[in-house]
Order: sequence, then C-alpha cells, then structure tokens
Amino acid sequence: MTTQNIQQALRHKIDNKTKPHGALGELEALAFKVGCIQNSLSPQLRQPTMLVFAADHGLADEKISPYPKDVTWQMAMNFVAGGAAISVFCRQNGIALKVIDAGVDYDFPVDSPIVPSKIARGSRNMRKEPAMTTGECEKALAAGRAFVRAEAEAGCNTIGFGEMGIGNTSPSSLLMHRFLGLPIETCTGAGAGMRGEQLSYKQQVLKEISEKYDPQTPLETLATFGGLEIAMMVGAYLEAREQGMVILADGFISTVSLLTACQFNPKVSENVVFCHQSDEQGHSLLLQHFGARPILQLGMRVGEGTGVAVALPVLQSAVKFLNEMASFEDAGVSNK
Amino acid sequence: MTTQNIQQALRHKIDNKTKPHGALGELEALAFKVGCIQNSLSPQLRQPTMLVFAADHGLADEKISPYPKDVTWQMAMNFVAGGAAISVFCRQNGIALKVIDAGVDYDFPVDSPIVPSKIARGSRNMRKEPAMTTGECEKALAAGRAFVRAEAEAGCNTIGFGEMGIGNTSPSSLLMHRFLGLPIETCTGAGAGMRGEQLSYKQQVLKEISEKYDPQTPLETLATFGGLEIAMMVGAYLEAREQGMVILADGFISTVSLLTACQFNPKVSENVVFCHQSDEQGHSLLLQHFGARPILQLGMRVGEGTGVAVALPVLQSAVKFLNEMASFEDAGVSNK
Repeated sequence: MTTQNIQQALRHKIDNKTKPHGALGELEALAFKVGCIQNSLSPQLRQPTMLVFAADHGLADEKISPYPKDVTWQMAMNFVAGGAAISVFCRQNGIALKVIDAGVDYDFPVDSPIVPSKIARGSRNMRKEPAMTTGECEKALAAGRAFVRAEAEAGCNTIGFGEMGIGNTSPSSLLMHRFLGLPIETCTGAGAGMRGEQLSYKQQVLKEISEKYDPQTPLETLATFGGLEIAMMVGAYLEAREQGMVILADGFISTVSLLTACQFNPKVSENVVFCHQSDEQGHSLLLQHFGARPILQLGMRVGEGTGVAVALPVLQSAVKFLNEMASFEDAGVSNK
Repeated sequence: MTTQNIQQALRHKIDNKTKPHGALGELEALAFKVGCIQNSLSPQLRQPTMLVFAADHGLADEKISPYPKDVTWQMAMNFVAGGAAISVFCRQNGIALKVIDAGVDYDFPVDSPIVPSKIARGSRNMRKEPAMTTGECEKALAAGRAFVRAEAEAGCNTIGFGEMGIGNTSPSSLLMHRFLGLPIETCTGAGAGMRGEQLSYKQQVLKEISEKYDPQTPLETLATFGGLEIAMMVGAYLEAREQGMVILADGFISTVSLLTACQFNPKVSENVVFCHQSDEQGHSLLLQHFGARPILQLGMRVGEGTGVAVALPVLQSAVKFLNEMASFEDAGVSNK
C-alpha cells in the first residue's frame, strides 16, 4: 500500500475497535507506528533480538568513570551467564540476547558464548589521539551491519541495541555535543555515578577533548570521539533501517548512536520506537530532538539495552490490540 | 521479619545487584514495595488475577455518557468472548480474567462465563433517589470480599480490579468530590467522550446531585453516590488488604474505589501498586493524594483494568531482577 493508504487504513482499523475513540492512548500511536514500518494492518514482532555491543575505552584511563575498566569484560561475562539486568529481562520477555565483543581489552574464554568481533583492544585515549582511525571505524560500522543482516535473514524483524563499556557515556556526550551543537555541560551527566566535583572534572576533560579536534564528516567525527561499540551500533542502526525492521531505542548511548546513524541516513529514525526515557542527563534533550515520547519513564540508567527489554511487552500489547481486539461491528457493541 | 528488618534486608539485596547504585530506578522501588507487602526477600507474583465488575447506572438515563446503556452488557459479553482490550492484554500476560455481573440490567445467557452476582438490575437514578440502599451497598461489599477470598484460597496473591458500567465516571467523580473535598469540576472529566457543552452539563448534573444529599458515614456516602460495581470493588480492595495480597490499581474508577476503601480501612493503600496514570481528569490528583508514581503513563482512558494488565510485565521485571540478578560478589564483578 502507499504511505497514505496504509496510514488511513490503520487509523480506520484502530478507531473501530471496541473502545472509546483514542482511549488506548500511546498504545494506539505505537500500533500505528509499527503498522507503518511494516506496511501492514496486521504487523508482527518476530524473533525480537537484543544485540549488546561491548568495548573498552582508552579514555577510561582518565578516571571519567567511578568503575574500573575490568568491569567491561566482567559484565559481558555476567550478561551471558544470565546474572545481569539485561539477561533477566530478555529471559523474561522472550528476547534473544547476543553479546558481541566489539573491542573489549580482554581475552574471553574460547568456549564463551560472547560473539568475537574485536576491532581493537579498546578505543584509544582521545585526550591524546582520536579514539579510532577511520579505518577501524569503518570496520566497526560494517561489522554492526553484518550482525543485523544475519538476524534479518534468520527471520527477525524487531531488534534492539544495548551496550557495555566502562567510560562510554563520555564519547556519547561528545558526539551529542558535536552533532546537536549543544554545550558539553548540557550533554554530560553522572554516567555510572560521577557527581559534584567528579562530574565537573569529567565535563572539563570532555571540553578539552572537543577543542583539540576538528573532524568534518560524520565518519571522522564518529572515529574521533566515538567508541568501538558505539560505531558498531551505528552500523547496526543503518542496516536495520535498510532491512525495514522495527528498531527499539534504549537510553542515552543507544540514542546517541541513533543520532550518529542519522548523520549518515536521516531516515533511520522512521523505523525507531523509543522505549525508555533514561535518567542520564542529556537523554531527554535527545528525545526532544527526535520528537519522541518513549514507552516507559522508569528513571533507569543502567544501559545494556534494559529499557528496551522491559518495554517490549508494552509494545506487544499495542500490536496485539490491533490484531486481536474486536470491532464494534464484530462484537455487536453499539457505537456512539 | 520486622518491618524495619525486611526493609533493610531488601535495600541491601537491591544495592548489591550488578548495576550502579539506584540505576534500576522505579523498578527498585517496585521490588522494594512487593518485598515489603509479602515480607519476603524473594517475593513472587502468583496467579495474577483480574476481577472485572460490571453494573449499570440509573443515572445513565440523564445522558451523562455518550454511549447507550446497552453497551455495559455488550462489552461484558465482549470481555468473555476475548475481543475487548482487557481480554487481549490478560491473554497476553497470563492474567486470569473473571467478569462479574454486579448489577447489569440484562439477563446474560445461562451458559455465559460471566459470574452471576447481581445485587440489583443497576443502581437507581441518583438525580431522583440514592443510587443504592445501604443494604444493597453492604451486599455488594460482602460479595466483593467473597470473590477475593476465594481467589486467595485458590493460591492467588496478586490481584487487580477493573470495571465496566456506562455512566460510571459520574459516581466516581461524586465520591472523589465528597471524600477529598475538591470541587465537582476538578473531579469530573470527559469519561468515554463528553466534551465542551456536554461536559459542562455533566458537571451541572453532578453538582445538583451532590447538593441534594448529605450522607454522613463512608457506607452512606458510597450507597448514595456509588454504583454496584464500585461498591463490590471497594469490598474487594478491603479483603485483598486483609489477605496480604499485592493489589494492582488501575485508572480513575479503580482509584476512586481504593479511596473509598481507605475510608473504611486506611491501611489498604499499603498493599497497592499503582499501574497507570489515566488520561481521565481527576486521576492525577487522586494519584497525588496517594503519593503514587504509577508504572505507566500511556494516556489510556479505557478502564476495564487495562492499565493493570499492560503494566504487569513491568512489575514482573521488578520482582525478577530482585530474585534473579547476580550480586557483585556472585558474578565476580568489581564494585566501585
């Protein structure tokens, strides 16, 4: 169907369900969005999948996170062992969880279910040099695309992206600052727990870094200020749009990756459902930028893709009412 | 455990999960609440059940709803046939749905799964006489208690209440007005779709009714201004508290019923998890009254218990992280 036809047909179907007009609120908007993405009056969320990209950051040497760098590999192991928040929520809601080593500075056991795709053993300390070469960045983008393509070929049409990387709110703040032209302070929050003087210090470091470089293209900007897991996620967003998938955006880092993907292809956001408004400073501004009203506002700031995993059943409620509710006519219920 | 001990033990367990301190936001508050209600570090949501109480309202003769009164029985049939919003969401989320005829002005087929408990064929038109006699009201309260007691005896420890009754935002507005001492206008919204002049008319009718009576006790107030499904729900809240259940509050009518139950026993609200902030005017004030921050804010206003049914998986996420996430020690993850 044409865009206009599918939109009209979806509105008609939604408005004839046995409920007052508009009474399912945001669920109606979500059903409409998924129907439009899939160009279908009976959309389906098939094989929902969470790809979690993990990488280390050379910048973590500058003490911009309260946690030691080792936590990146330790948490990646925790993800696949089933003990992390994302593991619990994916198991609960039938989401296939795949953890990808985009560039962790650690040798995982060979029998680990962590998917090897190390571009480097972490990005470089951007206080001294760009985080990645453009070559590394392109490799990460291509790898992210390939992972999503494989999922689409296996039948998945609904995908979310999570991340793990000690220090990765810092590159995210820098990318947001560069792409939206907002002050560093506005884009930089507590991350995993930097407050007061620690936060001022983090902001000072990031300001210094921003002034040090003058990248021109989106690729150069991502290579300079990004991270390996972020670049891989950007590639994943780009491919998921091309595959026509329903893309589930999570918190701050995931949404910055989306913002970055949109520098390459502005249409990516048309496929995105925003799942959660994170408590990380800057995320609400990013959501405003996209005109988004996320499904959940639970004040979480754990990353990993948790907002997506917790929100999925609500999105499924939207799809299910569209597919399963009776119309006034079918149910023999009098309309106004 | 004593209240203080269980609270401390829950905080300790939550704070030692592999995540930054407080990073699961509202899910942490929900896990804490359910743990306190059940006095357990490993709470469980067993046999979640939705009781939907249906009844007619004599006041519907005064055209305070845009829908004809027949919609009450038609929608009750739709609930059990599986085509209504509440049917879809309960099926999706494994919630047992029971529809109870508290006083519908219709003879349901004898083979219908609708549970018969008709106190009368609808409440009376309170523009002319009180909605119920205190005897009828007491009968409805007792029936609501009995339904919940039966669920508890069958092993259910998590219960939500929904309603269906054309015209039932009007008695709810009157009860809110009386118990909170707020102006009728503040307590009266669009319901299923009364806007502009229709809404002013609805407010005028309710003001006239409020001025007509001067009931003294909570029972007299409920009998005068309530409805049969509302009175039954009030009884259900009271019993669920006594049974130590986790009680899931829905939208406007459900929360007014809770407010009414609290006039009989103020401790009822200690067992309540607020599931959804409805779009119906007055609901946000009710939530403020209870100091509640509901799980979802989806702008729904369909009633039936839909907010509860859609929110349940998020509450389950809270319970599951508490039970299933690893601690820093268990997972071998470095803490700050």
